[in-house]
Amino acid sequence: MFVLFLQKISDLDILQYQSDFLTYLSSQKLIKEPKNLYEPIDYILQLGGKRIRPVLTLIASDIFSGDYKKALPAALAVEVFHNFTLVHDDIMDDAPLRRGHETVHEKWDINTGILSGDAMLILAYQYFENYSPLVFQKLAQLFSKTALEVCDGQQLDVDFETRNDVTIDEYIKMITLKTSVLVAAALKMGAIVAEADEEQAQHLYNYGLNLGIAFQLQDDYLDTFGDPETFGKQVGGDIIENKKTFLYLKSLEVANDEDKEQLYTLYNKKQKNNSEKIAAVSTIFAKNNIPNYTHELIEYYTNKSFESLTHLNIDAASKEGLRMFGENLMSRKV
Amino acid sequence: MFVLFLQKISDLDILQYQSDFLTYLSSQKLIKEPKNLYEPIDYILQLGGKRIRPVLTLIASDIFSGDYKKALPAALAVEVFHNFTLVHDDIMDDAPLRRGHETVHEKWDINTGILSGDAMLILAYQYFENYSPLVFQKLAQLFSKTALEVCDGQQLDVDFETRNDVTIDEYIKMITLKTSVLVAAALKMGAIVAEADEEQAQHLYNYGLNLGIAFQLQDDYLDTFGDPETFGKQVGGDIIENKKTFLYLKSLEVANDEDKEQLYTLYNKKQKNNSEKIAAVSTIFAKNNIPNYTHELIEYYTNKSFESLTHLNIDAASKEGLRMFGENLMSRKV
Repeated sequence: MFVLFLQKISDLDILQYQSDFLTYLSSQKLIKEPKNLYEPIDYILQLGGKRIRPVLTLIASDIFSGDYKKALPAALAVEVFHNFTLVHDDIMDDAPLRRGHETVHEKWDINTGILSGDAMLILAYQYFENYSPLVFQKLAQLFSKTALEVCDGQQLDVDFETRNDVTIDEYIKMITLKTSVLVAAALKMGAIVAEADEEQAQHLYNYGLNLGIAFQLQDDYLDTFGDPETFGKQVGGDIIENKKTFLYLKSLEVANDEDKEQLYTLYNKKQKNNSEKIAAVSTIFAKNNIPNYTHELIEYYTNKSFESLTHLNIDAASKEGLRMFGENLMSRKV
Repeated sequence: MFVLFLQKISDLDILQYQSDFLTYLSSQKLIKEPKNLYEPIDYILQLGGKRIRPVLTLIASDIFSGDYKKALPAALAVEVFHNFTLVHDDIMDDAPLRRGHETVHEKWDINTGILSGDAMLILAYQYFENYSPLVFQKLAQLFSKTALEVCDGQQLDVDFETRNDVTIDEYIKMITLKTSVLVAAALKMGAIVAEADEEQAQHLYNYGLNLGIAFQLQDDYLDTFGDPETFGKQVGGDIIENKKTFLYLKSLEVANDEDKEQLYTLYNKKQKNNSEKIAAVSTIFAKNNIPNYTHELIEYYTNKSFESLTHLNIDAASKEGLRMFGENLMSRKV
């Protein structure tokens, strides 16, 4: 479905990056002994997904050096790490399905999910061994910092479940850590492989950081208002899980007392009927203009992201490519 | 209790290393926001333990460069990694206690154990950032290789639980991966920090690898035949858990059919009374001379370990220190 919005944009041939990444992934001998450790790793990595993060690593390397193939190991490190977070998060969330298939801990068991996940985190670091000591250190350092931030974000997400005083600022901080820093780091890693200078690499990082926030807000929007026909996940999932997303937090800010109370009740009492709950919450969101507020915030972060592009010393076509990549990501329905 | 056998041996002042390591550990600001992520990390690291691995890193650095303090970050990386494996293994083993205190997943919950463990694995890599790019890469590369081997070993240990055809060779391979490679790597990391040449570092690694196997066999022996007064863990724990240790596997090799059958039954049927089971299994082990076989194998690996010392270009006193360290480790009762 990704092909619907990832076409050849400007001179960035996204489909080519994606296809070369998948070829590289397939060329890895992921399954070795002990099989019970490595088969789940191969399974989750072959499940698909949009491969946005590794593609961003390739784009960045291409833009700064005209060579994206040398960034393939770094791109794979990012994708393996991302999938590691999915395996462990799915255990924590008790999620049965991932991309329409059984999660690792469902197909095998929780212990397998824990241990195979651990091995993936280590494997991610090993892909950096393809680079010179200086590039290796820069990549591993950024990776460690990012990985720890992702853990911080996941912990905040868990903490928010039992808190009733989460602010919108705190929410943005949480999604920045849990989602955006990896999008940003994926780009910066491509710049590091291309040996771009630190300041340029940092501008690209900032582009990714704000784009990542916009991306997650769009995800929150689609989770409630997406078309069940095209959206990959169950529409209303966040509402069922009482996720305190921007949609929920903004409602508590702008709604009248009656709506607020109803929302609060819907999120804090066990509901028998999920469809009724989704309908009731969506109605409150819609009535309070939340879709518009969300689009405004998405636009705010998208523009903030594009602002970073003005500082990049790259050719106009690449800049336009990155801008269109952002535009496409924000108009996605999947 | 560690002080009982870790005294000033030759010119290696083990107590000094240990004390400097603990001071360095205390100087780290481990607890930060989000607290629910970092408090469990501080908790497990402060629980104590013999600190053998970080001490080995300091010893190695001291021997090759006369400076052990510069190896403190690498030593901490090793200890943080070791404790990460304890946190995740305790979840997998459903263990309630660790060093006489609640395990992390018992004191908090399983999700906390998973996520805090993940963060520890990343933190371990970050301690290498204290070194130059070349040393950083060597350390991180050895660390990744070792960490993945430890995962392999843990997986084999899990696999062995449901297999009835495990050989002694396979068992030695499993404990080599699960335990010895980290002891060996701890030493080699000290040598890397001291910028010893690769061949010398490898001899030290081999010393540690065989010492680690001897150490684990001694652990297996103490688990069944240790003095409950001095042994830190519950005597008989391996028997309760039907662990296919060397003691069990050797019995199956040398015992008569009657003993074999009894042993097989004791390990494969659910037992009501643990004390009776421990007594019955211990009796079969003792009757079949298993303590002696175990001591012989411990001696074999200890000697193999000492053989590596002959290749080291270090002063005689240091060599004697390493030999005595091994001797002390093998005569320990804790």
